[in-house]
Amino acid sequence: MKFPSIDDFNNTLSDINKYIHKTPIVSSSSLNKIYNSNIFFKLELFQKTGSFKTRGAINKLLKLSDLERNKGVITISAGNHAQAISWACSQFNIKSKIVMPFDASPSKVEATKSYGGEVILTKNSMMDECNDIKEREGLTFVHPFDDIDIILGQGTVGLEIIEKLNNIDYAFISIGGGGLISGIACVLKSINPKIKIIGVEPINSNVMTKSISSNKPETFDTNINKTIADGLAAPFAGNLTFEFVKKYVDEIINVSENEMIESMRVIIERLKVIPEAAASACFVPILKNKLSIKKNTNSIIVLCGGNIDLDKLKKLF
Amino acid sequence: MKFPSIDDFNNTLSDINKYIHKTPIVSSSSLNKIYNSNIFFKLELFQKTGSFKTRGAINKLLKLSDLERNKGVITISAGNHAQAISWACSQFNIKSKIVMPFDASPSKVEATKSYGGEVILTKNSMMDECNDIKEREGLTFVHPFDDIDIILGQGTVGLEIIEKLNNIDYAFISIGGGGLISGIACVLKSINPKIKIIGVEPINSNVMTKSISSNKPETFDTNINKTIADGLAAPFAGNLTFEFVKKYVDEIINVSENEMIESMRVIIERLKVIPEAAASACFVPILKNKLSIKKNTNSIIVLCGGNIDLDKLKKLF
Repeated sequence: MKFPSIDDFNNTLSDINKYIHKTPIVSSSSLNKIYNSNIFFKLELFQKTGSFKTRGAINKLLKLSDLERNKGVITISAGNHAQAISWACSQFNIKSKIVMPFDASPSKVEATKSYGGEVILTKNSMMDECNDIKEREGLTFVHPFDDIDIILGQGTVGLEIIEKLNNIDYAFISIGGGGLISGIACVLKSINPKIKIIGVEPINSNVMTKSISSNKPETFDTNINKTIADGLAAPFAGNLTFEFVKKYVDEIINVSENEMIESMRVIIERLKVIPEAAASACFVPILKNKLSIKKNTNSIIVLCGGNIDLDKLKKLF
Repeated sequence: MKFPSIDDFNNTLSDINKYIHKTPIVSSSSLNKIYNSNIFFKLELFQKTGSFKTRGAINKLLKLSDLERNKGVITISAGNHAQAISWACSQFNIKSKIVMPFDASPSKVEATKSYGGEVILTKNSMMDECNDIKEREGLTFVHPFDDIDIILGQGTVGLEIIEKLNNIDYAFISIGGGGLISGIACVLKSINPKIKIIGVEPINSNVMTKSISSNKPETFDTNINKTIADGLAAPFAGNLTFEFVKKYVDEIINVSENEMIESMRVIIERLKVIPEAAASACFVPILKNKLSIKKNTNSIIVLCGGNIDLDKLKKLF
């Protein structure tokens, strides 16, 4: 398989730049002191629509033909990709339909609708429902992660990290379907193969961990063990993202529900930002000493989204 | 009275630059859409120690004589200035004592101690307690707001705003003792006298509003009507800050406790950051249409701090 080059990512960033925010990177002296190293947080939760998904969504829509744009697009999503597609389509006047699980976060459903997309809630297989409508209406399916244009879009986060920090030792990135880590890991490793890339999955939704173990993309029944990190509850690993993770990711660490909640609390208190659990997950390895970070090294934690209901947040603490 | 020049503020920023963060400015497309104008938020809650107070504290300490530094400093504060002085003193190995009200926010007391300062909690007049210790131990008193070096430090927020945004129409800044608004208003008006400067005070702690009415710096019993915006509960207006506000501030708007809470909620949901009530206060005038903002104009909201206990936050919603 041929992986993208840095030029491919740079071209993508040029294409999508005017639609997205360049998000800040912050750190906390007190956290640095506790962990004897420099921990930087990429605040992708400030991205338009509240998560990194907007990068890939815009990039994908830019690649559609006129015919495809005219007919409209359809996708499946627990929430962040839904919002991103709905918003991105509104930028280009493209009709969008989004199939979401019936128990999706209410604020994510509301936000998706508010950007103009049509939401279809389902208790059945999202993919089946999506395929039915797609065939019937001739829509183009936009995959939430297993698409090279989506991966190229998400990877632009990596370019923004490298622009600010030229001496990273470790990068921590959450894994749902794997689109974000595929893009960022490819960028970081291409620039400096010594950067350790650590993927993070909830124990309750660790399809990529299982896929790496069995050496093939696995599926996962996300209804058996629910995770609060809805953004990471991917029912299968992508064929593409599996290849990227196999090539570029050094380690995948699994984290518990309580660990993600504790991490949210620390991030809220120390950094004054609201991460959703999918984002707080990737700070757990440092917070709970799950792997040994060398002293005086530099870590980047990608806080990938901040879309959480305030009422849900309240109940967690 | 002679007011500082832009050069004075620029020199201050050069002096303190290496100790402080340059904080980001963000906006929310959905808020902009709702209010038909561009609303920018200066995230000074990302400042070291969690509030703008660090700017003035560092600047003041840089101005002390060797003798003063060797003897140590003392101050009074409800919390943010306390943390800032404690942390800033730790940068220069200066001993610090901080008199705080007995009911100060526990996280602010803890943070102040953690930076190395000695905390004295009192139920009596903080100023009396402070003066006693100061006399006895020969310490130097660092005023939380009524000091030109403090005002110069806080005003550097204004320079960072102007660096990013050259077409501001309105600036909204909370008023406690008035140090922050004095500095920022002086910077902004010096650069463009057409910028409207709006000060914001809680109805329950509006000593500057009262001072402007009576045309002299007033005192205020902060124990009669408690405000959740502890950062704004100043028991008196400063002599200096009163003069700055009189000269540079166009209007002061008073806001209620519930309005500040509603504003916190909107900021948390839309911007994914945690403002303390003292910070959320200054978004209330736009949120609740308390003054008419012209369409397609640019407003800057200074989110001055984010130091709030998570447990207190939970109880507010």
